[in-house]
Amino acid sequence: MKVQDKNYRTIWIKDEDEKVISIIDQRFLPHRFIIEDLHTVSEMVHAIEDMHVRGAGLIGAAAGYGMYLATIEAGNRNSFDHILASADALKATRPTAVNLEWAVNRQLNAIVQGKTANERITIARKMATLIAQEDAEFCRRIGIHGAAIIEQISKRKRGKAVNILTHCNAGWLAFVDYGSATAPIYEAFERGVDLHVWVDETRPRNQGASLTAWELMNQGIPHTVIVDNAGGHLMQHSLVDMVITGADRVTLAGDVANKIGTYLKALAAHDNGIPFYVALPSSTFDWDIHDGVKDIHIEERNPDEVKYIYGLCDNEIKKVLITPLDSPAGNYGFDVTPARLISGLITERGICLANEEHISKMYAENVKEI
Amino acid sequence: MKVQDKNYRTIWIKDEDEKVISIIDQRFLPHRFIIEDLHTVSEMVHAIEDMHVRGAGLIGAAAGYGMYLATIEAGNRNSFDHILASADALKATRPTAVNLEWAVNRQLNAIVQGKTANERITIARKMATLIAQEDAEFCRRIGIHGAAIIEQISKRKRGKAVNILTHCNAGWLAFVDYGSATAPIYEAFERGVDLHVWVDETRPRNQGASLTAWELMNQGIPHTVIVDNAGGHLMQHSLVDMVITGADRVTLAGDVANKIGTYLKALAAHDNGIPFYVALPSSTFDWDIHDGVKDIHIEERNPDEVKYIYGLCDNEIKKVLITPLDSPAGNYGFDVTPARLISGLITERGICLANEEHISKMYAENVKEI
Repeated sequence: MKVQDKNYRTIWIKDEDEKVISIIDQRFLPHRFIIEDLHTVSEMVHAIEDMHVRGAGLIGAAAGYGMYLATIEAGNRNSFDHILASADALKATRPTAVNLEWAVNRQLNAIVQGKTANERITIARKMATLIAQEDAEFCRRIGIHGAAIIEQISKRKRGKAVNILTHCNAGWLAFVDYGSATAPIYEAFERGVDLHVWVDETRPRNQGASLTAWELMNQGIPHTVIVDNAGGHLMQHSLVDMVITGADRVTLAGDVANKIGTYLKALAAHDNGIPFYVALPSSTFDWDIHDGVKDIHIEERNPDEVKYIYGLCDNEIKKVLITPLDSPAGNYGFDVTPARLISGLITERGICLANEEHISKMYAENVKEI
Repeated sequence: MKVQDKNYRTIWIKDEDEKVISIIDQRFLPHRFIIEDLHTVSEMVHAIEDMHVRGAGLIGAAAGYGMYLATIEAGNRNSFDHILASADALKATRPTAVNLEWAVNRQLNAIVQGKTANERITIARKMATLIAQEDAEFCRRIGIHGAAIIEQISKRKRGKAVNILTHCNAGWLAFVDYGSATAPIYEAFERGVDLHVWVDETRPRNQGASLTAWELMNQGIPHTVIVDNAGGHLMQHSLVDMVITGADRVTLAGDVANKIGTYLKALAAHDNGIPFYVALPSSTFDWDIHDGVKDIHIEERNPDEVKYIYGLCDNEIKKVLITPLDSPAGNYGFDVTPARLISGLITERGICLANEEHISKMYAENVKEI
């Protein structure tokens, strides 16, 4: 997608040197656009751990490219041990990210087929590119399926701007390209649909205010940043036509774990008869569980993310304390939106209802026989 | 209530000099506790305008004391014109605050009875004290009525801590003493009920994180600051036993306008069968309107309150930018929670259901014949 009118992905093999991986260092967005070059596995491990890159899709792709860097380093050292050690190091960066383990294992299974160091490098480069390409392609398809819904609403409104509310960043910055929740928005905008996006700031880490707003601004899409408290009021006054969010994990029954606060927006959408869609590549499904509220463990994160906020001050990025120093804070990362509040799931294969029957039909090969 | 173990109100006549009004300058909380002395009407006007004091009850009391300062100044100048000009200046500080106009008019009606400058000063001092005293007394009674509900829940939980969620600051800092939403909490805690308060930070101005947390900390009440997104998740997991908020305006039908985001918490409470109470002195009722969503105009405030956040950095209070500089932001001050989501209204006369029949019965003298 566009940054200052130039096309980018979130991660790529550097044009000038195919032994180097370039990423957008997202820690400084929206205030600074910094491209970082990664030369070694340990630099990639650090980039994932320290959240230079984040988001399920992008973390998977980064791990794929990390394994490619591992084969280059292993070639120099003529050692397969280094490849295995790198796999472990990459997997350990963000233990809860399922895409990470999946991408590393996929690379290991491929690389092991190579007979020489050079063959392994070639295989790993191809596989890393494939993983990234698949991620982008799945998001592109989500965009096409989702754009159809936006077009329908646009027709019903006789071309008047479609107001879409989104929470957190399920944008291209969380994937390799397009994003999940944003892909339908980008696609519909590309097709000429008049639209406007309400961007929830998404406390505590403000991924909406910092990342989604930045994406939309660079794409030239009309948008307005709002506090997480505002969506209900907007929905009561018909200022929201649909909600699209991403997902961190979706159960077979259609319950959706996503960034904390998603559930509150789903309740408000339901109370006001507004369609609430969740966009996700199928890798986000957890085929083994049903009841999301009961069975998905919600991570508690560092309370300092609640007590302190980062922002730009005197042209530097600084953090400020917003609570009494001694007041305790609680920091729950995600919540679960029950399937009953969800109008549909937008996946790379199409749109399905958030229930076991429809999900099982669309992804029959993934669902285990009971 | 307590600040560093000493008892305070939010506004008082200075002990050492009865011509001076002292206030807690709330702009610097929770980071600095500063008492400001106000010597003139224009200093009081500035203090209200610039939000050294805020909150419906406190603004009314401040206007009352402002009129007292006006009579002192008028005495020096031997002029009633100055009293009238001061009344206008005070009314103009926060045009939407109903208590402001009410307090100033009440003072004018009293002061006009005085025949000499000294008589007027005496009358105005008594009336200012009465207005403040009434405000505190109404909050105290709200506390007594509301504490009974908390005690009931405590009994049902066999003494295990009662978890109460509150939004924004309807605490003693918004009134003269006790607060509205916090009064039942203070009273129940005083009676020895084991309780814990979830404090919504309340973006954009963070009155929960900065003021409510500070109040509770000084009172020694167990509390945890959370982002506004977290309440739904906590309610799904039985970590909230009741919600108490304040109100900015309540219709005859029981619809409640309150700080933006209140509606989302009411939806979540309803979805999880958790009682949702609104605490208010009866001055908050608007006897002329029924449908809050339709008829209460919601103020849009400066978008910079969304884009910038104030906090403590390097021991100074600074503001940081959290969005792209050029992204637009929307800032809706309040939302309306429909009566159907409200378990009851806690007023100085007792608890009533949020519907016209019950409100009319409790406040029969205020309700106009149709």
